[in-house]
Amino acid sequence: MSSTPGRVFWQTLNESVWLVHTSVAYDCIYDFLSAKERRHIETELLRPWAVFVMEGTEDNRANLEVFNLMHNHGTWSDVAVGMAGMAMGDDSLVDKALYGTDLTGKNGGFICQLDNLFSPDGYYTEGAYYHRYAIWPFVLFAQCISHYRPGLDIFAYRDSIITKAVSSLLQLSYNGSFLLFNDALEKNFDAQELQYAVDIAYYANPADKSLLSVARDWHGEVIVSDAGYAVARDITAGLAEELRYPSMLLRDGKDGKDGAVALLRNPGSLLFFKAASHGLSHGHYDRLGMAYYDNGNEVLPDYGSARFVNVEAKHKGGYTRENKTYAMQTVAHNTLVVDCKSHYGGKIKQSSEHSPEILSSNVENPDFQYVSATDANAYSGVAMSRWLAYARIPFLEHPLILDVLKAESDEPHRYDLPFHYNGHMVSLNVPYTRSEQAMYPLGEEKGYRHLWLEAEAEGAEGTTSYSWMLGNRMYSLSTATTSRTQIKLVRTGANDPDFNLRSEPAVIIREEGCTDHVFASCIETHGKFDMQTEQAVNLVHSCKSVRVLKDDGDSIEVEYVFINGNSFVLAVNRADNLMQIKQLKYENEK
Amino acid sequence: MSSTPGRVFWQTLNESVWLVHTSVAYDCIYDFLSAKERRHIETELLRPWAVFVMEGTEDNRANLEVFNLMHNHGTWSDVAVGMAGMAMGDDSLVDKALYGTDLTGKNGGFICQLDNLFSPDGYYTEGAYYHRYAIWPFVLFAQCISHYRPGLDIFAYRDSIITKAVSSLLQLSYNGSFLLFNDALEKNFDAQELQYAVDIAYYANPADKSLLSVARDWHGEVIVSDAGYAVARDITAGLAEELRYPSMLLRDGKDGKDGAVALLRNPGSLLFFKAASHGLSHGHYDRLGMAYYDNGNEVLPDYGSARFVNVEAKHKGGYTRENKTYAMQTVAHNTLVVDCKSHYGGKIKQSSEHSPEILSSNVENPDFQYVSATDANAYSGVAMSRWLAYARIPFLEHPLILDVLKAESDEPHRYDLPFHYNGHMVSLNVPYTRSEQAMYPLGEEKGYRHLWLEAEAEGAEGTTSYSWMLGNRMYSLSTATTSRTQIKLVRTGANDPDFNLRSEPAVIIREEGCTDHVFASCIETHGKFDMQTEQAVNLVHSCKSVRVLKDDGDSIEVEYVFINGNSFVLAVNRADNLMQIKQLKYENEK
Repeated sequence: MSSTPGRVFWQTLNESVWLVHTSVAYDCIYDFLSAKERRHIETELLRPWAVFVMEGTEDNRANLEVFNLMHNHGTWSDVAVGMAGMAMGDDSLVDKALYGTDLTGKNGGFICQLDNLFSPDGYYTEGAYYHRYAIWPFVLFAQCISHYRPGLDIFAYRDSIITKAVSSLLQLSYNGSFLLFNDALEKNFDAQELQYAVDIAYYANPADKSLLSVARDWHGEVIVSDAGYAVARDITAGLAEELRYPSMLLRDGKDGKDGAVALLRNPGSLLFFKAASHGLSHGHYDRLGMAYYDNGNEVLPDYGSARFVNVEAKHKGGYTRENKTYAMQTVAHNTLVVDCKSHYGGKIKQSSEHSPEILSSNVENPDFQYVSATDANAYSGVAMSRWLAYARIPFLEHPLILDVLKAESDEPHRYDLPFHYNGHMVSLNVPYTRSEQAMYPLGEEKGYRHLWLEAEAEGAEGTTSYSWMLGNRMYSLSTATTSRTQIKLVRTGANDPDFNLRSEPAVIIREEGCTDHVFASCIETHGKFDMQTEQAVNLVHSCKSVRVLKDDGDSIEVEYVFINGNSFVLAVNRADNLMQIKQLKYENEK
Repeated sequence: MSSTPGRVFWQTLNESVWLVHTSVAYDCIYDFLSAKERRHIETELLRPWAVFVMEGTEDNRANLEVFNLMHNHGTWSDVAVGMAGMAMGDDSLVDKALYGTDLTGKNGGFICQLDNLFSPDGYYTEGAYYHRYAIWPFVLFAQCISHYRPGLDIFAYRDSIITKAVSSLLQLSYNGSFLLFNDALEKNFDAQELQYAVDIAYYANPADKSLLSVARDWHGEVIVSDAGYAVARDITAGLAEELRYPSMLLRDGKDGKDGAVALLRNPGSLLFFKAASHGLSHGHYDRLGMAYYDNGNEVLPDYGSARFVNVEAKHKGGYTRENKTYAMQTVAHNTLVVDCKSHYGGKIKQSSEHSPEILSSNVENPDFQYVSATDANAYSGVAMSRWLAYARIPFLEHPLILDVLKAESDEPHRYDLPFHYNGHMVSLNVPYTRSEQAMYPLGEEKGYRHLWLEAEAEGAEGTTSYSWMLGNRMYSLSTATTSRTQIKLVRTGANDPDFNLRSEPAVIIREEGCTDHVFASCIETHGKFDMQTEQAVNLVHSCKSVRVLKDDGDSIEVEYVFINGNSFVLAVNRADNLMQIKQLKYENEK
């Protein structure tokens, strides 16, 4: 890709997308054209266009590279050529679209993409936003193939990878909005691609009646095809079933060995953990990052991408420079930053060579779901591991997030753990110094230079707690700290000459000069705030103390103590990384 | 009030509110008590409580002052005493509650409050938020009076001022949320006070069937009383009618001579203009201020109050100090600031002595609604006048706000005109210098010290345009400027040690060293942005030029030129302040 200039790359994408739609249009009117008209259109327009998309020009073969590329642009390119080929009855084009220009199916083409871009769980390596984008050509071409080459049985291919991909895409959402990791902007189930995906997937697999409820609740219309007809007919027949969202891991990588993303859910909420591979050119340096959604809001968000689609004044609607200098950088995510540098030095090549390893997970027990992963390659000489649990604690109002992140190194480092949040700062349980008369960036390093330092503090000797409000609830982060811990309250917007960044806050926990360090925290969801009756309950967090009791080769144990003396210990067994709650002690129910 | 210490003042409020509810409770169980029980409750609790609320103690007569005060606290106090009196059958207390401690009805008491706190249009001088708060005791006591002293015909009093007050309160809203001027937080039609107000007003005036739709759509329940029963019965009978929102002026002042607020509406939007009196202790220094609501959003907001009700960590839930130092100050509003000082020197006494004068208005013509007002007292030696129109222009997608604000003085001054907005900055049509490596407050003056200076620019020689996006629309402010004009882009949050301020942006137009100056602007609503289909239209504003053609004793004329050469002239006749669109010239429809 490095040899593909941006302009040409984009040009190809547009040429491909338009060719897809033009081929559909041609197919629609084919029967009404004379042989002469067909010849004219094919000779003068479709075939040269398809060849251009596939091979480029003699002077510039960039398109050929894209055609064989494992990337959503490659998908559009293959599909465009394939559909033009089908519309013209040109099997040579169809074959190349399916199996790559060398026809082996190993070095490019649609089949190769099905083999490589999706994991066995149907996870698309670029993440939810581009999964949503790429699903359109995937399902559209698959539907054409099922008509044109029924013998391929394309929807059964690779254990039904295409319908599986539609299902996993729907799971990568909260309240019908796709999760915002990697390059991502707001997209919902009503995105145009989803109409194609849902209708065609249902036609291919009518056993999945939950697809009908997505079409019914989000689309209100169907695509004009046999697939759309089936969806409309079966919704009318009352066959729709609600889409269920069980907690799950979605493995990444063609063999499912490149880490995973985890979706740990409770009613109304979602804890998302990203321990997947880099995700191609739209990936971010955010190994072991997490996000939290609750009560209809992004509570601990991922920034997504710095982009304003279609807004000419903002870098002509393309990704702004701050996408690379901020949104992709590690400090823009809820994960560990070592020495203020991004994972893998912010180098996509290095980052793409390694994936995190899932250490353990349990998504079956609704009272105690957990997942853990490790990445020993993001920083030279520093291994990082994170154990995340989403636990129902009998004396707490809402499920509690338990977060243990360990950095291990022989050399001393600066460890920063940011928690980006939405909402308004309510309290920090230590005195802090607010930037009142002047405000400066947090640092000069990549990502850091975009953060205004709004306030700073020394951590509490024991536990530092930070509370904020969002919607009608409160959220509190409590972390084991010492007076050497530094707390940085920051807000995006520094070094942003064109106002390309949104103004959003974060709290950063900083440990200076540590070799090994365990960040032990919990995130409470609590309280209810009703502005109409002015009634408020439980606005103060319950967690009084977070303490690392033990941290050795055998296990990590973290004690959480709450008001009224309630407490428990979170234990991680390092041999198998199983996690459990021990010594649960409580006087009162919630 | 200055002699009333805050603590005692608040204590009285709570005592009053509780006494209201306790009296209701006592009345409910009265028939089930023995004579002895009644005597015990009245002697030991209700009467001393009522006397305390009315008179305070021998050592502290502050309560007496509150009892006779024209203020929502006075209302609660009178109503508490009156309802306790009714529950006990104590006519002496009832009389004092109705007519004040001197029984004249001129110096305090409920009737005096009905005479003074509401304008002939039913506008409550503290503004919508406290109107909502005060309406509860007003309607509750009125309902009791109608039972206890039916001869008073209280609901007919002063041309039905009580039901008129409920109607005007409902009008001071956008999409069911009350407007945020003066001290105000988010309150909707589902606020508990509205259930009482709507139900009791309907019972008093069942001709107003629109009240039923408010109860149906926002409450879903009724108060337990004959009023609530009537509402439930008539909703069930299908009698509810939609509440209409015609454009209107609501005059302020007991005689309707203390200015007014204007509500200029188009379908889905509202232009609000405040040319009313100070509004007692919860008033802000915001004469001739405006706010704009569109597409479900506060586009040009009023900050409202700096307060976090019930959030202990935020000044115990009371008004934070930033309410006085920022939220009340003039620069926090969309109106003229002279020499960086607030109106009336930020002194409530002076501000309460004067009211703006409405110069002209027309709310009848939906194609061209307007209102204008002047205030010659807010600044010594500077008169300010503002002419606002909300016009349907044939070639524009949405109605256009036309804004002409004139400052007149013999001495040179610095004139600042802020536009606070919600949304994300998209473009400014002149080069600007962004605060990249350091950020400082805009100034040291009151209000100014809370604004971070995010960027600054010299105005365009001609017209400066500023665009931002909010929801799925664009908004653009275009103002006649010169290269001597300064543009300041600011954001709240400086000198805010406790994070009490929300982080919100504004653009300020600054004219330095002017004697007379006309700020001539328009605010366009344009474009549509659909992230689901990635379709965007009309994202660039149409107004190319705003120019003051004429400004003399006879008239002000402002020329607005749009793309494609479309143009018109806004003319203000200074003799009668009538406004009109002249010389409308256009090639194409919208």
